[in-house]
Amino acid sequence: MSAFDELLAYQRQTEALGQIAGRLGWDQETMMPRGAAAQRGEEMAAMEAVLHARRCAPQVADLLAKAEAGPEAAGAVGGAHLREIRRGFERASKVPEALAMRIARVTSEAQGKWAEARAADDVAAFLPVLREVVALKREEGQALANGGDTYDAMLSDYEPGTSGAEVAAIFDAMRPRLVALRAAVLERPVPAGVRGTFDEAAQMDLAVQLAGAFGYDMARGRVDKAVHPFSSGSGSDVRITTRTNPADPFNCFYSTIHEVGHAAYEQNIRADLALSVLGRGVSMGVHESQSRIYENQLGRSRAFTGWLFGQMRARFGDFGVADADAFYAAVNRVADGYIRTEADEVQYNLHIMLRFDLERALMAGDLQVDDLEAAWNDRFAADFGYAVDKPSNGCLQDVHWSVGLFGYFPTYALGNVYAGCLNAALRQAVPDLDMQLAQGDTSGATGWLREAVQQHGAIHKPRDLIAAASGMAPSEAPLLAYLEAKFGDLYGL
Amino acid sequence: MSAFDELLAYQRQTEALGQIAGRLGWDQETMMPRGAAAQRGEEMAAMEAVLHARRCAPQVADLLAKAEAGPEAAGAVGGAHLREIRRGFERASKVPEALAMRIARVTSEAQGKWAEARAADDVAAFLPVLREVVALKREEGQALANGGDTYDAMLSDYEPGTSGAEVAAIFDAMRPRLVALRAAVLERPVPAGVRGTFDEAAQMDLAVQLAGAFGYDMARGRVDKAVHPFSSGSGSDVRITTRTNPADPFNCFYSTIHEVGHAAYEQNIRADLALSVLGRGVSMGVHESQSRIYENQLGRSRAFTGWLFGQMRARFGDFGVADADAFYAAVNRVADGYIRTEADEVQYNLHIMLRFDLERALMAGDLQVDDLEAAWNDRFAADFGYAVDKPSNGCLQDVHWSVGLFGYFPTYALGNVYAGCLNAALRQAVPDLDMQLAQGDTSGATGWLREAVQQHGAIHKPRDLIAAASGMAPSEAPLLAYLEAKFGDLYGL
Repeated sequence: MSAFDELLAYQRQTEALGQIAGRLGWDQETMMPRGAAAQRGEEMAAMEAVLHARRCAPQVADLLAKAEAGPEAAGAVGGAHLREIRRGFERASKVPEALAMRIARVTSEAQGKWAEARAADDVAAFLPVLREVVALKREEGQALANGGDTYDAMLSDYEPGTSGAEVAAIFDAMRPRLVALRAAVLERPVPAGVRGTFDEAAQMDLAVQLAGAFGYDMARGRVDKAVHPFSSGSGSDVRITTRTNPADPFNCFYSTIHEVGHAAYEQNIRADLALSVLGRGVSMGVHESQSRIYENQLGRSRAFTGWLFGQMRARFGDFGVADADAFYAAVNRVADGYIRTEADEVQYNLHIMLRFDLERALMAGDLQVDDLEAAWNDRFAADFGYAVDKPSNGCLQDVHWSVGLFGYFPTYALGNVYAGCLNAALRQAVPDLDMQLAQGDTSGATGWLREAVQQHGAIHKPRDLIAAASGMAPSEAPLLAYLEAKFGDLYGL
Repeated sequence: MSAFDELLAYQRQTEALGQIAGRLGWDQETMMPRGAAAQRGEEMAAMEAVLHARRCAPQVADLLAKAEAGPEAAGAVGGAHLREIRRGFERASKVPEALAMRIARVTSEAQGKWAEARAADDVAAFLPVLREVVALKREEGQALANGGDTYDAMLSDYEPGTSGAEVAAIFDAMRPRLVALRAAVLERPVPAGVRGTFDEAAQMDLAVQLAGAFGYDMARGRVDKAVHPFSSGSGSDVRITTRTNPADPFNCFYSTIHEVGHAAYEQNIRADLALSVLGRGVSMGVHESQSRIYENQLGRSRAFTGWLFGQMRARFGDFGVADADAFYAAVNRVADGYIRTEADEVQYNLHIMLRFDLERALMAGDLQVDDLEAAWNDRFAADFGYAVDKPSNGCLQDVHWSVGLFGYFPTYALGNVYAGCLNAALRQAVPDLDMQLAQGDTSGATGWLREAVQQHGAIHKPRDLIAAASGMAPSEAPLLAYLEAKFGDLYGL
């Protein structure tokens, strides 16, 4: 067996174990008895120790060096395998184990403190542990950066090949136009929402139908409920979760479509890449591009909402929305709000840019944890035009920083940017897309995305993949054009 | 840290990983999408490879040798830790990896062949692969026995400390009395069963209530449906499954109580033994003693069935059983039948003894695979008085041999024997037990079993544990006395 084949066989076992760890995470959020949390923590830690040891095993270093000198390194797929295995090896090797364990311990504690602080609207109670988290993550980032930019090193965990400066350039171009669009939209009357109570079992039933309509393969997945919707797993076991709220059926339906975007990406990867480093989405940004285009450019389009309106009328009767136009407006309602996860397409990216700038400054040492709340509130007022009323609506709203996720937030907005590029190309490639969507038929769109993006797994680097699929260098321009056209039309601007 | 402490810390991680493997098994039977089977096979194999490597790691040998010479070895609990870690180490070390891998591959194939052969009632189609399985398992048994008795070595995987000869002595004493009791009972009229259809959701509802009534802690467990009921996990995450059949509510209720017996054993082990080799049931026989005493001596008692009758009447109305006496008779109905898993208390052990004698002869080389069907049919006719009508009702009915489980069957009947001993002691210790059971209150019984048996986990060897708990050397006498009294009374013998 060649060193390359031996390396792939070794990696295949690591990937299989990684899938198990993912399934444990799924179980924890859906099935685990509440009294099992402490034991589960030990189980996960034992699994992580196994995975970490495998990732930076001396055997991997040897095989990598030999394989990188072998003939497979020259091929597109072989080279990609080696690129991703090398990345994982370096990542696992660069952070001292003692630091990794301290981060695991402190972030576990910090998550609890954050939840308490948010519930009590008490920033001061959270700051001491956040200070520790930030210090440890900076230390980790410096270890990863190896002399380079700390934040870039952290970002490359989630979006390899994109620097903080590149993200900043895109965001800086978007911000003024989104602030302006938001302000213009909010000068117009807010459209009416739905009325009444929506049976939760019927919501789940329609959610499963929607999942199928967007190409989710239930023979290789399942749909359950969880507090926070997510998608989990790769290959032939990709599970999604959603949630129901009797007053707000859109939460269930659009969470489902969003997670199906993530899941379809995983399910549609070429079968020969299964259980390899290439058998998964290539970055968080590209992953989010799939979930966002499914949810927004397709799911919240005028054409598709026309079909969905009929489905909802058939199941729920009259819910206070007169016709398809009013329904389209209700689905795309823009209103004031503090919370990122509840934000509409116009405002969502503003929430992200705020977090990106603050966390980048934190990592650079240009912003101190003690000044975080003030910086958040100033920025929010500047972009949204009103003041944060309480910390749980401000800097305490997200779990991310407490668990040490720095460099993750921008991938949400990058996903939107990529979705904008892909949507422009998709509209060219499938001219009668709206006619299909109006019948509830997403196959033209999802088939194109499968061919152009999803099937390739992690073979191509994120920006290369988006560029090849959309026929243009990734840019914010198509997303902005799409948003200005859509909401200009909806709000009569 | 002492070698002993280091060994326990190492073992704790192994146990945590073992819990994960168990949870994967649960997931496979309850939640896994049907298309995920092949990938799951690879995941399980990767996990088993990790566990195997940990179990026979040179590090374990070193630490064991040092710890066995240390002060902890002299203590009851410390000594027990070392005994069980040593047993696991020897077990994992003795079987060559190539043989273990061949067994895994051949039994996986054999299970499929068995299922096809059973469906087609075609013994000849199963024999070639069974011959391979038997040959490989004999090879494994000889490796484990290291010059000793092959079957004893296999038995000690499931019932350490008990030899085939000891089991044979017990079974030989039981067989004629059970054959006679069976014949006498079956000369009397068969009591009527239940009539009608029983809503499956209502069955599950009562099953969960019954689980609670027998002390199952839902905060550290959950109840789901599966094709074959089972209990899974240790410590604070012990899950059970059951099944429903609209025509046969007893299947659901007594499967549930049986699995709760297994699960309560795991849940009630001293918390300080969690995630150690002692933090689990000590043998399959002792495990089965708990499930059987919960199901039979408690659950099928006249006192408890009186309470259950009221619960069922309240939920299901009239189901064709006039009163508590008729209900008690229906629950304990004895009738002809070929299938072990459907057998009543009187006949169940006869099914086991048949399998024990045949598999022991197979392993000794005294019986050839080609002669298995004839030997089965002869023995069945001798004990049950009528001929096997087709192989799926005979030697093809159980999965066990196809997957290489030899030495496992006798633990079912040993469990009944142990349950007989424990029941005799329990009746002495809790004189008003029947008054409690008649109120649906099992706490006197389950509390006594927790104290006498369950809390100790695997500290004491199986026979020692049963002897200490029941105050007598394990013997078939109490079980036979119980069965003869119960069914003599029920059938007016």
